[in-house]
This record gives sequence, structure tokens and C-alpha cells, in this order.
Amino acid sequence: MSVLRRDPTTNRWVIFGDPPPAARTPGDACPFCTGHESMTPPEIVAWGPPQRRPDAPGWQVRVVPNARPLLRIESALERHADLIYDTTSGTGAHEIVIETPEHQRSLAALPKAQVALVLKAWAERIRDLKKDPRFRSIFVFKNQGALAGAWMPDHSHSQVMGLPVTPKALQEILAVARAHYRDKERCVFCDILREELEYGQRLVQVTEHFVALAPYASRYPYEYWILPREHSADYETTEPALFDDLAGVLLASLGRLEDILPEPAYNLFLYSSPNRDARKGYWTTLAQDFHWHIAIMPRLVQTAGFEVGSGLYANPVLPEDAARMLRGGTPSGDDGAGAPSG
Amino acid sequence: MSVLRRDPTTNRWVIFGDPPPAARTPGDACPFCTGHESMTPPEIVAWGPPQRRPDAPGWQVRVVPNARPLLRIESALERHADLIYDTTSGTGAHEIVIETPEHQRSLAALPKAQVALVLKAWAERIRDLKKDPRFRSIFVFKNQGALAGAWMPDHSHSQVMGLPVTPKALQEILAVARAHYRDKERCVFCDILREELEYGQRLVQVTEHFVALAPYASRYPYEYWILPREHSADYETTEPALFDDLAGVLLASLGRLEDILPEPAYNLFLYSSPNRDARKGYWTTLAQDFHWHIAIMPRLVQTAGFEVGSGLYANPVLPEDAARMLRGGTPSGDDGAGAPSG
Repeated sequence: MSVLRRDPTTNRWVIFGDPPPAARTPGDACPFCTGHESMTPPEIVAWGPPQRRPDAPGWQVRVVPNARPLLRIESALERHADLIYDTTSGTGAHEIVIETPEHQRSLAALPKAQVALVLKAWAERIRDLKKDPRFRSIFVFKNQGALAGAWMPDHSHSQVMGLPVTPKALQEILAVARAHYRDKERCVFCDILREELEYGQRLVQVTEHFVALAPYASRYPYEYWILPREHSADYETTEPALFDDLAGVLLASLGRLEDILPEPAYNLFLYSSPNRDARKGYWTTLAQDFHWHIAIMPRLVQTAGFEVGSGLYANPVLPEDAARMLRGGTPSGDDGAGAPSG
Repeated sequence: MSVLRRDPTTNRWVIFGDPPPAARTPGDACPFCTGHESMTPPEIVAWGPPQRRPDAPGWQVRVVPNARPLLRIESALERHADLIYDTTSGTGAHEIVIETPEHQRSLAALPKAQVALVLKAWAERIRDLKKDPRFRSIFVFKNQGALAGAWMPDHSHSQVMGLPVTPKALQEILAVARAHYRDKERCVFCDILREELEYGQRLVQVTEHFVALAPYASRYPYEYWILPREHSADYETTEPALFDDLAGVLLASLGRLEDILPEPAYNLFLYSSPNRDARKGYWTTLAQDFHWHIAIMPRLVQTAGFEVGSGLYANPVLPEDAARMLRGGTPSGDDGAGAPSG
């Protein structure tokens, strides 16, 4: 049974529980493959033909509980003091979104309709988990490649966690975005979008509904974000018709990342609003002061301790150069796709 | 020439500059070895016999500028706005403390007097760099082993950086400690020390002047902190006579870490007060609300993206068990060295 503890000098929560599973041996049968449905816990939801029975082949995208979850959904949420410290039961959801029935096919290699289904699956799981008031926030992420921490690197999947706390990284963004809004009555991400659309040199791709850009102070080489052009705090309220556009942006940028870095390892994080209903009246975000976004963090090298200990990152690639490369340009010349320089 | 940029959604500074050097090839001549003094830039300070000339053999501990610094001391400090963003020139100091003239001898294998000299060197460099008002904080750290990001793993050294900003990780601790003090008129670290000395189960070692303990919400397995028992915000004001005691605590705990994990990779961070004089009258710490400490973070596995992206860490080893092992106990039984349980 896992438990969460909070460090009183940083307010960071840490989960104490079973160690993560060792990376799977390539020869083992893959529990995520079609035909192996009985190797996972019973599915939560799946997309496929209407006549298909649960836990049978035929699905396109399948969501199952993590067989070795960091947090457990069966436990009652308990918070208590422990000496001068704070602790919370390891209550939560830990789900796997199996993105394709096919083994060894990366997200970047899937058809656009399939990627749109994955993006829709994230939204549906967030919507469903937010109904549970025990969950303060829903964190969606994907580890691609061993350098990014994937323990099952050969079958493409993402993870959805319903958390009894708001994780520190999201809390920090919420606090800064809220202070910006309080001061200016403007969303900081809307400010960024407006500025970057005009400046142009850090843009990766612009479609009718989404913008992909290399952020001004990228932590990692070739890091980029995807944001909706229209203000929205809640990913799960995205119009279903827009997932096709979003899938196209994600596929194009991941494809160009593969041109720059063969078989790139990366982490993908979906930063969306926490469960506002669960803490109504207490400090949380309001819809107007936060803007959901997807961050893609390529992992060329492992994060050294210095970055973790200082919070100061060193990045040898300027985001202007990263954006030009991610638009399909060359390291030296321009690609002509950027907007006029400022 | 490097430059710092600040991310407006997290207030995190990122250094953009030359990539770090590739890890040294074992066959190459080691620039840190005695007799190779001309392979480094001219030394800043060294400890050795009084008749020794600079950049000649005979030293015990030698401090040199990093030959490929992330930040440059020659540049004037400039801060300006860049569109809606903030940027600062890459002005700073980046120094190497060569901890021993001997190749392939780890800090844990040095005599106590030698380790005390290293600890004294850190204090002297902090004192000296704080005289420069361009530097907002001085960050001292050590990467031991390739998993911890060491690029010169075979000659023991630590690094001292004079920074034009206060790095985010220190800023976070300062903010939380300051809020605690504002609310309670007590130092949060003094609270932790008092509670842990009474509780006992997370103590690693207690001497006349220092306490080593596994913190309540350790991020990493076998993480531990060393704190002075008497309140002090500024490491560099430590009485010279106490470095012997501190060296003993560090050596004993690193030695036990080596019993648990053969050839452990770890990061060591010294969290000390920022340069209070450089921002007098503006927000910074006061001496009463912060408490310097050394954090040792063993690196058993690389940090997955999940931790970096969420700020939520998962740790399979409870600090009570880590402390028992670090006291020399066994995984199951106790070692009898702990104080009575609470």
C-alpha cells in the first residue's frame, strides 16, 4: 500500500510504494498486444467495432488499469498529520492507454485517425476521473524510449493518473498563471501565443485551432509545446471535431523530431486544469487564468543532478534554432516557413 | 557567449550556451592531476605548503576556473526585457574544486583532514564570490559517478557557481522557509531538527555540531541531509574548527552509502543563503528564516521524465529504512543506534 508524504521545505509530495517494474525483456509476451487481452486487468474502456465484447481482440485503442499501480483506486482517501508533517493515503487511479494493437509501432507512425482516437481517449478518461472528488488532478503523460524512462518501450502507450494532490510542477504553473491574471486580467499563455504568432521565429506549426512553438526558455533541446489558439483551461472540453487537427499537429512535429533525432526518446506531458469541483471555494485555478497545453520534452541526454538540485537548466540549443529545425529547416539556413522576424 | 532566459509560466531560468564537454576518454591525460597544472586555467587559490608557487605541484586542494564555463566572469551583468520576456547576460563564475591531487580516489576515500580542507575551500570561495554584487547566489555541488552526470568521473572534484540569479530550487525553499517564519517566528529546519532528534528513526548520525538525517519525504532512495544543529543561514560563516566534525559526518555517511550501494553515484548540493547584500532591501532571505544544509542524493536510476514533468517523485525506500541502513543496520533488523521510537 503506497502513501504520499509532503516535504515541509518545498511542499513537494513524494509517493512511497513498490518499486517500478524492471524494463520488460524483449522476448516476453507483450500484454499490450491484441490477442493478449487476458494478460492485463479487465479493461476500463476501449474503442472498436460495436459488436466487440470487452477484453477481446478487435479494439483500436484500449484503456486498462496499470497492473502495478503507483496509487490504488480501492483505498479511501485519508489525510492526516504525522508529527509536524503531512501525509495522504496512496489513493488514486493509474491507467494505461494502449495506443495501438500493433507491437513496435510508435505514436509518430500511426495514422492520423488513430492518433485522434488516442487524444479523445485522454479526454474521456479525464472527464470520467474528474467525477471522483478524491482526485485533485489528472496527469496524462507518455514516456517514449528508454532514456525517457519507458519500462515497456516496444508497445506504444500513455499513462493517466488520478492524483489525490496537485503535483508540484502543475501547482507552480497554476500559481504563476494566477498571479499574472490577478495583475493583468490576461492569461499568460494567451499573451505568449499572441507574441509568438507575431514574432514568428519560435513557431513550429500553426493550424486553424492549434499552435506548436518552441518556448522562449526551453529546458531541453527541441522542446516544444502545443496550445489551443482559443483560450481553454480544460483539455477534456475540447470539441471532438478538433482532435483531428490536434492529431495532425502532433504527428507532423513528432515526424520532424524523428528527422532531427533518429528514434527520439521524449516525454510528453498534458498540463490541464486540476479538478476544480473537488476543491470548490479553496485555492485552485479559475478557468480564465490557465490554458491547457501539451509539452514535448526530447531526452537527448539524461538529466544531470545539477538540474534537479538547482532547478537551473542548461540548454545548448536556442529555441529559435530548434523551431527552424522542427519546421523542417536546416541548422544554418532558414526554411522560409517562419513569420517575419521581429 | 551564454545568456539566461526566464520562462514566464514557471519563473524558471535556463542557461543557453555551449554544450557541455563530452565525458573524458579514460586514456587522456588528466588536467586535475598533480604535475598537469598547466592543463587548467591559472589557479584561483590552492592549499599547500607556504613555499609553493602558484600552478606548481605540492598542493592538497586546488581551485581553478572551469576551462569550459557555463557562465563567464568577464562579462558585465545586463538585464533587459525581450518582447514580453526577461533575459540576463550569462555573467557568472564557474569554478572547479580539485579535491585531491590523487587520480581515482573518491571523496569518501580521502583522509578526514583532506575532506575538511575541501569543505573549507567551499566556504572560502563562497565568501570571496559574495563580495561581487553581480552574483545573486553561489551554488556548490558535486556529481559523483556517470549516472549523476559527472563528465570527469575519475578525478574527484566539486563545482562552485556564482550565479546572476537565484536558482529556482533554492528560491522555492527560501519562499517556503520564509512563509513558515512569517507565520510562526520559527525556522522550519530548526523545527525539523527538533522533531527528528526526538523521533529518532530517521536519524543517520548525530555529533556535537551536526545532524545527518533521511528527510521525511525523501525524493531518492537513501537521500540524506546534513544540517548544523545551531541555526545558521550562511555556510561560509561556519567556525573553521567545525569543519573537522562536518568532514567526519560526511565521510561516515558516504562510507555507509558505499556499503549499501557499491560505487554509488550521487549528487551533493550545498543549499546556503543567497548573496543578501546584493539585493538589500528587496526580497531575499533574512538570516533567521533559512538554515544551510547539504543534500546527498544517490542516483540509483536515472530520473524519468515523469518526475521532471510532474514534480511528483516516487521513492520505493521509506526514509526510516534508509536511515537504519545508513546507520549501518540491516534491511530487516534494527541496529540499536536509533533513538527511542515515537
